[in-house]
Amino acid sequence: MAEAARGSPEAVLEIGNRLLEAPSERLVASAFAEEVSGQDELFRHLGLVVLAHCITLTEQGVIPPAPARLLVAALIELQQAGSGFVAEAGFGDLYTNREAYLTRVTPAVGWFGTSRARREALTTAYHLSLRERLTELGLALVRLGRAIVTVAETHVESVMPDYTYLQAAQPTSFGRYLSGFAWPALRDLQRLEALYVRVDLCPAGCGSINGSVAFQDRAAPLAHARDAMWQADLTIEAIGLAVAAVVGLDRIAEDLMSFATAEFGFVRLSDRHGRASKIMPQKRNPFVLAFVRGGANRLIGEQAGVAASGRMDSRMLPYVAAQAALLMAEVITELSSDNERARAAIDDGITCASDLAERLCLTLDLDFRTAHGVVGRLIGRLESEGRVLASLTEAELQVACRNAGAKRPLPDGLLRSALDPACCLRARGDVGGAAPREVVRQIGELACAFRQHEERLRAAERHYTVAEQRLIAEALAFTEGTA
Amino acid sequence: MAEAARGSPEAVLEIGNRLLEAPSERLVASAFAEEVSGQDELFRHLGLVVLAHCITLTEQGVIPPAPARLLVAALIELQQAGSGFVAEAGFGDLYTNREAYLTRVTPAVGWFGTSRARREALTTAYHLSLRERLTELGLALVRLGRAIVTVAETHVESVMPDYTYLQAAQPTSFGRYLSGFAWPALRDLQRLEALYVRVDLCPAGCGSINGSVAFQDRAAPLAHARDAMWQADLTIEAIGLAVAAVVGLDRIAEDLMSFATAEFGFVRLSDRHGRASKIMPQKRNPFVLAFVRGGANRLIGEQAGVAASGRMDSRMLPYVAAQAALLMAEVITELSSDNERARAAIDDGITCASDLAERLCLTLDLDFRTAHGVVGRLIGRLESEGRVLASLTEAELQVACRNAGAKRPLPDGLLRSALDPACCLRARGDVGGAAPREVVRQIGELACAFRQHEERLRAAERHYTVAEQRLIAEALAFTEGTA
Amino acid sequence: MAEAARGSPEAVLEIGNRLLEAPSERLVASAFAEEVSGQDELFRHLGLVVLAHCITLTEQGVIPPAPARLLVAALIELQQAGSGFVAEAGFGDLYTNREAYLTRVTPAVGWFGTSRARREALTTAYHLSLRERLTELGLALVRLGRAIVTVAETHVESVMPDYTYLQAAQPTSFGRYLSGFAWPALRDLQRLEALYVRVDLCPAGCGSINGSVAFQDRAAPLAHARDAMWQADLTIEAIGLAVAAVVGLDRIAEDLMSFATAEFGFVRLSDRHGRASKIMPQKRNPFVLAFVRGGANRLIGEQAGVAASGRMDSRMLPYVAAQAALLMAEVITELSSDNERARAAIDDGITCASDLAERLCLTLDLDFRTAHGVVGRLIGRLESEGRVLASLTEAELQVACRNAGAKRPLPDGLLRSALDPACCLRARGDVGGAAPREVVRQIGELACAFRQHEERLRAAERHYTVAEQRLIAEALAFTEGTA
Amino acid sequence: MAEAARGSPEAVLEIGNRLLEAPSERLVASAFAEEVSGQDELFRHLGLVVLAHCITLTEQGVIPPAPARLLVAALIELQQAGSGFVAEAGFGDLYTNREAYLTRVTPAVGWFGTSRARREALTTAYHLSLRERLTELGLALVRLGRAIVTVAETHVESVMPDYTYLQAAQPTSFGRYLSGFAWPALRDLQRLEALYVRVDLCPAGCGSINGSVAFQDRAAPLAHARDAMWQADLTIEAIGLAVAAVVGLDRIAEDLMSFATAEFGFVRLSDRHGRASKIMPQKRNPFVLAFVRGGANRLIGEQAGVAASGRMDSRMLPYVAAQAALLMAEVITELSSDNERARAAIDDGITCASDLAERLCLTLDLDFRTAHGVVGRLIGRLESEGRVLASLTEAELQVACRNAGAKRPLPDGLLRSALDPACCLRARGDVGGAAPREVVRQIGELACAFRQHEERLRAAERHYTVAEQRLIAEALAFTEGTA
Repeated sequence: MAEAARGSPEAVLEIGNRLLEAPSERLVASAFAEEVSGQDELFRHLGLVVLAHCITLTEQGVIPPAPARLLVAALIELQQAGSGFVAEAGFGDLYTNREAYLTRVTPAVGWFGTSRARREALTTAYHLSLRERLTELGLALVRLGRAIVTVAETHVESVMPDYTYLQAAQPTSFGRYLSGFAWPALRDLQRLEALYVRVDLCPAGCGSINGSVAFQDRAAPLAHARDAMWQADLTIEAIGLAVAAVVGLDRIAEDLMSFATAEFGFVRLSDRHGRASKIMPQKRNPFVLAFVRGGANRLIGEQAGVAASGRMDSRMLPYVAAQAALLMAEVITELSSDNERARAAIDDGITCASDLAERLCLTLDLDFRTAHGVVGRLIGRLESEGRVLASLTEAELQVACRNAGAKRPLPDGLLRSALDPACCLRARGDVGGAAPREVVRQIGELACAFRQHEERLRAAERHYTVAEQRLIAEALAFTEGTA
Repeated sequence: MAEAARGSPEAVLEIGNRLLEAPSERLVASAFAEEVSGQDELFRHLGLVVLAHCITLTEQGVIPPAPARLLVAALIELQQAGSGFVAEAGFGDLYTNREAYLTRVTPAVGWFGTSRARREALTTAYHLSLRERLTELGLALVRLGRAIVTVAETHVESVMPDYTYLQAAQPTSFGRYLSGFAWPALRDLQRLEALYVRVDLCPAGCGSINGSVAFQDRAAPLAHARDAMWQADLTIEAIGLAVAAVVGLDRIAEDLMSFATAEFGFVRLSDRHGRASKIMPQKRNPFVLAFVRGGANRLIGEQAGVAASGRMDSRMLPYVAAQAALLMAEVITELSSDNERARAAIDDGITCASDLAERLCLTLDLDFRTAHGVVGRLIGRLESEGRVLASLTEAELQVACRNAGAKRPLPDGLLRSALDPACCLRARGDVGGAAPREVVRQIGELACAFRQHEERLRAAERHYTVAEQRLIAEALAFTEGTA
Repeated sequence: MAEAARGSPEAVLEIGNRLLEAPSERLVASAFAEEVSGQDELFRHLGLVVLAHCITLTEQGVIPPAPARLLVAALIELQQAGSGFVAEAGFGDLYTNREAYLTRVTPAVGWFGTSRARREALTTAYHLSLRERLTELGLALVRLGRAIVTVAETHVESVMPDYTYLQAAQPTSFGRYLSGFAWPALRDLQRLEALYVRVDLCPAGCGSINGSVAFQDRAAPLAHARDAMWQADLTIEAIGLAVAAVVGLDRIAEDLMSFATAEFGFVRLSDRHGRASKIMPQKRNPFVLAFVRGGANRLIGEQAGVAASGRMDSRMLPYVAAQAALLMAEVITELSSDNERARAAIDDGITCASDLAERLCLTLDLDFRTAHGVVGRLIGRLESEGRVLASLTEAELQVACRNAGAKRPLPDGLLRSALDPACCLRARGDVGGAAPREVVRQIGELACAFRQHEERLRAAERHYTVAEQRLIAEALAFTEGTA
Repeated sequence: MAEAARGSPEAVLEIGNRLLEAPSERLVASAFAEEVSGQDELFRHLGLVVLAHCITLTEQGVIPPAPARLLVAALIELQQAGSGFVAEAGFGDLYTNREAYLTRVTPAVGWFGTSRARREALTTAYHLSLRERLTELGLALVRLGRAIVTVAETHVESVMPDYTYLQAAQPTSFGRYLSGFAWPALRDLQRLEALYVRVDLCPAGCGSINGSVAFQDRAAPLAHARDAMWQADLTIEAIGLAVAAVVGLDRIAEDLMSFATAEFGFVRLSDRHGRASKIMPQKRNPFVLAFVRGGANRLIGEQAGVAASGRMDSRMLPYVAAQAALLMAEVITELSSDNERARAAIDDGITCASDLAERLCLTLDLDFRTAHGVVGRLIGRLESEGRVLASLTEAELQVACRNAGAKRPLPDGLLRSALDPACCLRARGDVGGAAPREVVRQIGELACAFRQHEERLRAAERHYTVAEQRLIAEALAFTEGTA
């Protein structure tokens, strides 16, 4: 279907009717071109919308059967020819481009668009498209979630430091660390499903801002025609959802960017996700991470533009987030982790400092603040001696506690067990904690939740695919007079 | 409670323990000051969080009963003294300011904050605060919805032009027009309730990023401690919701700004919402509308900043949207509409042009495009003669139709009824249409939906108010040894 | 030059050297594709950069003459074939796409990119491109300025109300009103010239972040190689300039949107700038204005994305602003103004209220605040009687002044002359005022300033066009061994 | 001057004159409160503006001398009482708050604001304030620049790896690395000076949008009164400048965040810029860096809000950037660098890989691409053997080169010198390069440039300080009748 629309621009743009002059070249090259290029992917959806409209109006006795059959036949042919249709700005938007095409192929074109604003048709097409985009994003988040779950469950005992402010904080496992990114993805899926329900309502059959004269018993889901056609909130919600998703991805990317340095060395990305330098032969730049991070920032800006202008074409933006989610799923699946280095990074005992303070508090007669101060000062002193916390002796600790007012002696083995990362992890067995057993439980919960979301998304996908096929079949029957 | 915190900054900031020097004056005056000033309204919520933590840890045997009683007593006293507490940047954030205060009033201060990151306490307080903010926004949207419903239902027959691109489009009624803004508000309420559920889960008892050693059977709603404390998505969702709401308000304000001009003259704002000029004695500027519009833009910017940085303090932002919603509710309730002028603006018949085209199409043997062209050319011709559409004669129309190929004669009275706005409205009786009866139905649906939301919001409000009172009572009993 | 690059992706992406695997399909389809599509318009500039580099390195003895000639010949051929070159994401960015092309056509390809980071080449190309974009924007602003000047100078006596908050404020002339938008355009030109100077410096010859080993006496304008290649500030400045420009255009568009309504009726846009409705035959929507306003919002969002990410490809964005400026120039040139209606809108005398107050203050013994109050109360009273200010009688005014404490009688004719808009204008003859003579002076100043900017911009344009031609000539001579 | 304004709100808000009702409580608590709170720091500037206006109008014979003296005396008293003046939203903005104050202290209040819009006064005050804010930001950037220069010049030989994508790229010195951030600061200073010139023009004496009747020979710098009072471009430019500055600071902060980790360990921030944890005794969080980064993101959002709304109060925002610049100046001055660790990080030779490739290309008969490939493959092989590039032997390299087609033998010592970082640096002696001598030159250029900017900024500061003192003196003389 490489043949472009070649009807008369004047007719479809109403030149000679309401307007006496054709649009200025500059307007066509800017406003018209931008609008129509943003509608590219609506081709299929608009076709469905237009078909349904035509058939219904015929059933309602508005369009006479004979031209209706011609029109529907032409529309089906166009639909089946696929998306090779190239719209031209000179014919206006995607809607008038379609009209221009019909002008060339059927005399019934005059019934095209009967009693309907272009906005009604296009907005309905946007709803259909957004439904698909949301499903796509949902499945991408599921893919990400599953990638995390799969990698995480093999690493619930792969100890590593957890960081805040990029400073080692407490021990964690690589599995537990990674799984932390699955929870926001799960909440994104909840948001997505709620939005899907709102998007599933649409202005089909509204006619124009004040309702339709022609349609009279629309099974109308949206209660107010103007609201249905001019609302900005769904677009704002859709891009807000996409932003929440990419910000989550950005955080994974930010961490991996550090963990993949020679200095941290906890992970190594696949060569498939890197880029070489044209001058420095040693370089394996984590290009994919830079891309995901840049995309997040771009989407944040896009969001401001959307909210300020209420542009409808941005309803398609969840695609960017889906793309990024699939990339990160791939990155996580294919990276290799260096558990040795991660474990070595924790050997200095420093991430167990809070555990040590808590144990002193629980077993000696020291309040938490005192115990915390004891450990803090000890770390400072060791540091100035070039020593790490792991080198602290029981005797040194005993003295420090006594000086801080401890009456009881230090229990045997407390120091060693407090500074043992595996021990620290095991001690955090409550809901939310980093104990391997609890992490296994969390991961199981995640896996189950992602599975359920996937099932619902697949069901929705089947639902609209079937509806589309049924409409096309109905339209074919209609042209054959069998409907 | 005007007495400010006056403990030692050094102690609460761990100077002398981990850090050897106090923060630089510049850091205190900038970073510390900004942080603590953003936490002002968390005072009460943080108090609740801290009380619950202290009591629970005592029950778990971590804090000994004697100091626990002192600590709880001091915390209750502070809580009951109200929000006069003035935090100082020199003591750090709101959390360490509280510690500094306790340092001054009780020797049990050393047990404050046992086994808990400040982030756990503050994030939990943010959740409590956001719950309140959301309820507040929800009730403001309900108030707006009710104001619209109340005004709209008295104006379902007050005819006026509806506009797109600020050009008269089709007839509507003031009631129908106004009610169009209630639907997005209703969707905002749906979003708000979904978010409320997510916010009602919180990190209380997590300890720190890797879970708590002290707490061991937390009825923990958030499954991953790190996720619970560092997630950005709820903030992004909250501000996204606020933006959707203010963009809706902005659209009302934008329209009213036009409708309140001398040139349109459809509405007149109350003097209570205007501002006079200090130089031009005639001026009654619609200051409230400019404020609402400016606020929307500001929030859009804020949203970009929030998404880029994931700042947690912005969880309180729904307040701005609530304020704007309440203002617009007041504006709508108090404005006076000039139905005469609105009706006069429609007398030229121009907004019925599409109805005329549709009737020609339905009754003559003209396809829609031809009928549309006939009317469009007629309007152009009349315009060049300085005439309005309402002055078109049946004879003129007849000729034009015949020239366009109509075989049948123009039915009697078609022109008059097509150009009668009231007729146009009545013809749009299907769901979503502007017919008075249908608008009454829509308004009824709205009224009912807002009532239900209000009930749920009030119930949520009661729920957390009671929980707060119960906690305080429990804490009092605890200090008296009766708990 | 429709033939696409068809070398081996593996070679140019260093697969088999540093990286062992080719980039993942997903990475190519997302990150690579997005990057290369953003570089489309750099084709010509990158060609110049690469040619200059190759010739210079040969002069410095780094590249041997024989392969250098082959390489330069291939590059010239590509350059002259024009911009039909279609880059493919599979070959990486525009730079490696060029390398892939060369791989196919010359064995000397191995000398391509000697001692240079791709970023050095691409950043230099961005500078060249941005120079052109800035010139383009500058000339567009000049065109806008001239359109304003041309229309304004014929309307220095076409009286109309000036508005603030969309409420009539004081009398102005259409010429004076319009010319108010030329001043910010002039400041944009000042900014643009300052930025041009900064952009005219570039990293050519830097090599890589730490400078070049090969180049050793670069006439280097940018003093620090890393700064030259990674700076974000020029991009931020460029988009900031574009935003300032479009916000100015947005304000014109916002006003014209109101002035072009039936209710105001001061101007009528050309049919060439409107769009018809497919359902409402009467519609002439000011589509161009909606486009300009939407573009402004989009650019504001883009700006946030740029600042958050420091993306370099956004240096090309001034193009959007140039497009909008040219459109608005066209709109202003082609609109028709209805001076009768504008004048009628001022007949009620209301916009002269401040003049009346000032005259009372200057001629009676009333302070300004008292005089202002007298007029304000009178207007309120007249309004409640359904009268306009122009109907105020001298007797009524006299009484009001006396009641307010005026001792002297009202001078004869003061009321009439105070309420005469032409009189009001003439009285504002000082610099900045709306008096026709002063407006003529202002417009003259504008015309002169725009002329000067145009001359400088044209000179800059000539300068780089000549430099480009000279480089190509030099390169041709080089291949012929005559250089 | 703790006494608040206590005149009558009704009078200053024109209630009873133009407006019949006082503003609604909600409007006061929201719109009025927000506006007046944003004007806090204009107190002093507005005082100057009002004084000058009053004196000039008296000279022009508009205000009679007797009340003028009273008014000026009251204004001076207020000015000298300092900024303790607390404005109340109930009295409107800062301007009407001042009027309310005067109402209480002098009967001459009726002459306050004669023939002037509040916007003229406030905009002029904003210009004065912005001048100061710009000077402040300029001096902060100078301070930053000098801090960089001072630290950098002691580290031109402190070798360390330079990074792109957080992967080691080429050798640099800490001094050279740091100095890279001074150049954008210098460009910010250039922008700032250009903006200063534009801000130095103002609407003083304009009267209102259409010029003044009272003022008639204003030495008026801004040519169009409406433009002078309603322009948004200066605000957009000012915040754009601030954003460019903070994005520059954000990049330093981002790097230092990595370099200050235990894993990199190149720098250690002063304890004065960190914050301890309340639960983890070992933590020294780089709080200052997180603050600077968060501030950058906040300002980026603010910028979007400003551009979308054209808010004038944001002209004060450069303050945020100044604060961040001073913080970073302090951070850089007080950090300690660990040159041993930085040097050790470069010992593996990897950052010299591009130098090695370039040398092979220059000395053997290999083209650059071949040489680059040889080194890339060698690095991969060494890596798989667990070896670093520094361990490569001449024999191994020789073989690899020969396999790649090199005909000549490897020059003695080439490998060693190519992999010697100091050697690499020295080789980059051209403008922009990292050679110590060249870096010393660059730093000298920077030092000189910052010195010159400081001088100009100080001169501007003196200029307006003297002008302010002179105005006050003149006003005092005026009240004593000696002027």
